[in-house]
Amino acid sequence: MVNFIRLMCDRTKNTNIRLSLPAVCVVWEIAMIILFGVFIRYNWESDAHWAESKHNLSDIENDFYYRYPSFQDVHVMIFVGFGFLMTFLKRYSFGGVGFNFLIAAFGIQWALLMQGWFGSLDYSDGKIKVGVENFINADFCVAGCLIAYGALLGKVSPVQLLVLTLFGVTLYAVEEHIIIKIIHARDAGGSMVIHTFGGYYGLAISWMLYRPNLDQSSRLQGSKYHSDVFAMIGTLFLWMFWPSFNSAIAGHGDGQHRAFINTYLSLAATVLTTFALSSLFQKHGKLDMVHIQNSTLAGGVAVGTAAEFMLTPYGSLIVGFCCGVLSTLGYVFITPFLEKHMKIQDTCGIHNLHAMPGFLGGVVGAITAAAASDTVYSHEGLVNTFDFKDEFKDMVPTVQGGHQAGALCVALIFGIGGGILVGAVLRLPIWGDPADDNCFDDEAYWEVPDDEENIIPNIQYNNHMQNKDVETIKPHRRKRCSRCF
Amino acid sequence: MVNFIRLMCDRTKNTNIRLSLPAVCVVWEIAMIILFGVFIRYNWESDAHWAESKHNLSDIENDFYYRYPSFQDVHVMIFVGFGFLMTFLKRYSFGGVGFNFLIAAFGIQWALLMQGWFGSLDYSDGKIKVGVENFINADFCVAGCLIAYGALLGKVSPVQLLVLTLFGVTLYAVEEHIIIKIIHARDAGGSMVIHTFGGYYGLAISWMLYRPNLDQSSRLQGSKYHSDVFAMIGTLFLWMFWPSFNSAIAGHGDGQHRAFINTYLSLAATVLTTFALSSLFQKHGKLDMVHIQNSTLAGGVAVGTAAEFMLTPYGSLIVGFCCGVLSTLGYVFITPFLEKHMKIQDTCGIHNLHAMPGFLGGVVGAITAAAASDTVYSHEGLVNTFDFKDEFKDMVPTVQGGHQAGALCVALIFGIGGGILVGAVLRLPIWGDPADDNCFDDEAYWEVPDDEENIIPNIQYNNHMQNKDVETIKPHRRKRCSRCF
Amino acid sequence: MVNFIRLMCDRTKNTNIRLSLPAVCVVWEIAMIILFGVFIRYNWESDAHWAESKHNLSDIENDFYYRYPSFQDVHVMIFVGFGFLMTFLKRYSFGGVGFNFLIAAFGIQWALLMQGWFGSLDYSDGKIKVGVENFINADFCVAGCLIAYGALLGKVSPVQLLVLTLFGVTLYAVEEHIIIKIIHARDAGGSMVIHTFGGYYGLAISWMLYRPNLDQSSRLQGSKYHSDVFAMIGTLFLWMFWPSFNSAIAGHGDGQHRAFINTYLSLAATVLTTFALSSLFQKHGKLDMVHIQNSTLAGGVAVGTAAEFMLTPYGSLIVGFCCGVLSTLGYVFITPFLEKHMKIQDTCGIHNLHAMPGFLGGVVGAITAAAASDTVYSHEGLVNTFDFKDEFKDMVPTVQGGHQAGALCVALIFGIGGGILVGAVLRLPIWGDPADDNCFDDEAYWEVPDDEENIIPNIQYNNHMQNKDVETIKPHRRKRCSRCF
Repeated sequence: MVNFIRLMCDRTKNTNIRLSLPAVCVVWEIAMIILFGVFIRYNWESDAHWAESKHNLSDIENDFYYRYPSFQDVHVMIFVGFGFLMTFLKRYSFGGVGFNFLIAAFGIQWALLMQGWFGSLDYSDGKIKVGVENFINADFCVAGCLIAYGALLGKVSPVQLLVLTLFGVTLYAVEEHIIIKIIHARDAGGSMVIHTFGGYYGLAISWMLYRPNLDQSSRLQGSKYHSDVFAMIGTLFLWMFWPSFNSAIAGHGDGQHRAFINTYLSLAATVLTTFALSSLFQKHGKLDMVHIQNSTLAGGVAVGTAAEFMLTPYGSLIVGFCCGVLSTLGYVFITPFLEKHMKIQDTCGIHNLHAMPGFLGGVVGAITAAAASDTVYSHEGLVNTFDFKDEFKDMVPTVQGGHQAGALCVALIFGIGGGILVGAVLRLPIWGDPADDNCFDDEAYWEVPDDEENIIPNIQYNNHMQNKDVETIKPHRRKRCSRCF
Repeated sequence: MVNFIRLMCDRTKNTNIRLSLPAVCVVWEIAMIILFGVFIRYNWESDAHWAESKHNLSDIENDFYYRYPSFQDVHVMIFVGFGFLMTFLKRYSFGGVGFNFLIAAFGIQWALLMQGWFGSLDYSDGKIKVGVENFINADFCVAGCLIAYGALLGKVSPVQLLVLTLFGVTLYAVEEHIIIKIIHARDAGGSMVIHTFGGYYGLAISWMLYRPNLDQSSRLQGSKYHSDVFAMIGTLFLWMFWPSFNSAIAGHGDGQHRAFINTYLSLAATVLTTFALSSLFQKHGKLDMVHIQNSTLAGGVAVGTAAEFMLTPYGSLIVGFCCGVLSTLGYVFITPFLEKHMKIQDTCGIHNLHAMPGFLGGVVGAITAAAASDTVYSHEGLVNTFDFKDEFKDMVPTVQGGHQAGALCVALIFGIGGGILVGAVLRLPIWGDPADDNCFDDEAYWEVPDDEENIIPNIQYNNHMQNKDVETIKPHRRKRCSRCF
Repeated sequence: MVNFIRLMCDRTKNTNIRLSLPAVCVVWEIAMIILFGVFIRYNWESDAHWAESKHNLSDIENDFYYRYPSFQDVHVMIFVGFGFLMTFLKRYSFGGVGFNFLIAAFGIQWALLMQGWFGSLDYSDGKIKVGVENFINADFCVAGCLIAYGALLGKVSPVQLLVLTLFGVTLYAVEEHIIIKIIHARDAGGSMVIHTFGGYYGLAISWMLYRPNLDQSSRLQGSKYHSDVFAMIGTLFLWMFWPSFNSAIAGHGDGQHRAFINTYLSLAATVLTTFALSSLFQKHGKLDMVHIQNSTLAGGVAVGTAAEFMLTPYGSLIVGFCCGVLSTLGYVFITPFLEKHMKIQDTCGIHNLHAMPGFLGGVVGAITAAAASDTVYSHEGLVNTFDFKDEFKDMVPTVQGGHQAGALCVALIFGIGGGILVGAVLRLPIWGDPADDNCFDDEAYWEVPDDEENIIPNIQYNNHMQNKDVETIKPHRRKRCSRCF
């Protein structure tokens, strides 16, 4: 009987992904190749026909030159920013940066297809035509899934993450289409589309995958001195390039210029209030790296929707100020509350960094849009900024504000609803997720080097071997748990 | 009596900043919001009115596209470059990268105001109009304060650093106005304005805050293997992006192009002489990471003023060659001399990386300017490069050389004079700076994770607990000093 | 007799480079200054005469603005990408990132001269005129030598590396001239010119420097937990910026745009197959950091030659898919085979990351070129992409395919032949290379900080000193080997 239970236990919590991970990766990549073969083509500006069809355009007027620097900044945020921000755990740095790499690389391919079907399909030949702007949007789309990963860090298998990404990208593409095209909301930096959706998507999944006995791996839930420094690499690259993120797909000219300024100022203000509140809420006034690594970024999230609006420089500072306060308080009070009373275990605190500030950003966007006027924007500026063209040419700012608020609700519904559905799928006992006492441990999915510093020359080593006490010196590395392998 | 002394000591060296840091951060940020509300507005190219007023300009002619990539490179230097360069100490990496983050985020806001009042004030409506170039200048301005922080690393409290930044930015803005506008000196890369000023500002403050008993924390004054690798992240990002730094606000076209080339070549030469001298002055010819991390950058500093001049490629190599030698010799001979005989404790060796090379850069700039001629520059080139327009349209290169030399003196006077004044303010016993035996230690201001690797499964752990000898295995972490808390 | 042998051994394996390294660095840098003085001048776009001679060009049409962002991405790859990728060894991080820095900084100077003599010489005045494109090419040239360093990591002295770079850059410039100018092959991303050449150059040198007793330093041949995380910094910056690498010198307009898209997609596919195969070939399905750090990049190499061709998006995915499989299998099977049976010790596995994928890239390029047609490219597009102009205006795609294949052979011959010659030079017992039991150890060439955490307050420390058992707690750091110093 005991043996049978052991066996069941072995089966349900077997982290051996030697078949499932390769199978999923290879099958999905082959699917990508086939779908790309059927659907994806170069767009006008990246096709060799450009040489003939550009007419009197100069080569340097190719949009590549006005989007690519921003694209690369966003790309750094996705891979180094998110990746290193998740290296803070003492024994999950490989998983943090490595799985981030895996799901982002898969997600961008799937996002090109999903977003292409909704937005870049050329109905004349049924092909999706891609150029640099599609790739920025694919990075944005993946950001939503990486945010969700933040809540689940250390508690899921890479196969689960790939499933999460497949569904996440799909949901995102639908949600984005509804918000941008149907509701005609503006969301340059994605406060609603990316952060609210991604945040609540991750939190809902985490709620579905609640682990009551997670304290069995509490020994691994903290950081180490150097893992905190690694995480600062992620923080700083996110912080520095956030102005590029919010301005990457804003309108050329004043739109991008203004989105950069608003984001920059909001982030600067957030840093000061984060340091203030971090010190205020710690015994002895000491600063907490968790706050500095995360809450300093909340200002970039909250200014996303309104980034290209005439938020004014001091308006941006006010948003940043409030967000630093809100996000740090979230780490101090709300995260423990969510875990204790709401059964939501949020490893990276995405509720404080993405969900709440994203929601706030949606609200700021709605108010700023509703308050827009010809005086502040000029008539042409208003039309440009809010895209009051074609079927929306009679739209007025106050109504636009209502649409923005509606869009925020859509993002919430997709995040929470989608998260619950996907969470249910991920509860199936087939994905190779770790046991409760095995969470936050790279040993489960990675060959981890032995950190014992046995760099003793042979001759010395032999001497030691004669010394029985040497055994007591060895650092106590975790032995592999016989149950898990 | 003894108790009374203890009490005094407690009071003067209490590192608890639970009230002072939040108070300063919040009050100053509120001040920023009010001042931004009164003074700061979008400039022509970032305001929504651009759509109407740009007339026949194309959106892609917005200056955003020709300054923003350089801006982002400079931004990375300020936050990752300076920040990680200061992580080299074994237990002060949090303070190095974290306080760098705090003071830079505050400094850029105050710099936008100070530099705006002097340079971007629109007298028609009394507002400061900001665009991407203002943000590059704000980063430059903050660089001066971060350089000063280098001399003080590990010996001051964050509150002191905020005060240092408030005064430093103010002094910088005045000094810059005198040098650029009144004296009409050219200083594209800021050898004088940024590095000479910032270097001597920091050294003068360090002299005022001299700690005779600093050797009490000598156990923490070195690096660790991995902290040295972290510092190389800072070094490399500074080194790679220095050409962007020196060319960021140079004149469009050939000016920026040439500033990049000169800086690149000077830096390349510096690396070789730094490696050469580092090996030559060490026993056994071993290389010293301190030199590689710092002196390799000196060539970028020394070519700052002359970066946009016709310094010629080999001229740049010569400057870099000399600077690598000078800076490395500085670390070997001058820094110990300054500490022993001049009472200047310079943690990062900014005298060798910024002050001396900056001074040298000012001299190189003056000579190169004085030697300029119509033959080398063409007439229009000369006018463009040295801005011989309006009230300076009759200026000749030799006189310009004199002005450059005068500007160097101004930078020195502001640096040393300002440093002494600010140093006097920072000596007040109210700022929460650490005790002598508590310097270079993150424990003073940060919640530091416990690096004991207690990642032993419970069952093993219990076995160990029965083994009394386990006590001897624990790494000896510093207990909190009862005096300091 | 024994003493005599010891003496010889001492002499041949003396790692003291106190004279040789400074001498080589200083003499070569002086040579650079002289040669730059004689040969190198600013080109039209970076000379002050531009102001007069640009006529009705606008300043923002300077090529600086359309090449510099790509240049900076490439620059980051060379210094941070390659540098940090080589920090993975547990005690050779200083050497990995530091010597990479040294040889790159020297190599770019020599490359400007060598490539200039072949490609940018102005016959009217005998000067080499340099601008931003020359600096991108110099970075490319140095990449070849850094690849070769990957095979030799930990086994050679910095003086040997400088010799390797001097010859490597020279060979590269000749090989590049033959391939690009004489054979008229296209190689935007350098699959042949850079990766095939650099890979086989390094492998041939490694073969010449074969160390049969290298297992004497096997204790140092692995990674540590944090050194693997450092290496991921290198991996990610290489991965993210590879699209900039392959598009940096492609034709303006659609060429650069397409090169970016192809590279991006190939890299994304590679990540998935690398994860798949890494898991499949490990016991328990665990992922191996060596594969994730290296094989994920192979897709960028293999798409280099064909990057600007109409490879199609799905074609890029297929190349990336195959490359991830090939490269990971290389690490699992070929690297051990090469070491055991071919006497090639390849520290970083450059055969799997550069040599094989580079060769594959050359083949892909030849096939894609041969299959080009007016239908796919448009006539003007074909002429633009393959540069069918002037003396090659009658060239047809099938013949171009043949030229591409010929170019691949040239790259191979230069790599292997050059490597054998240079390897023979490097076997001379004068270069200060480390002994077999001293390889992979920073102690040989660097002042390494003592990582003992003696951060115990004095009073506690004294207590410990009375406790004799404290001796047993000290981590066992390697004592300096008396033979080596």
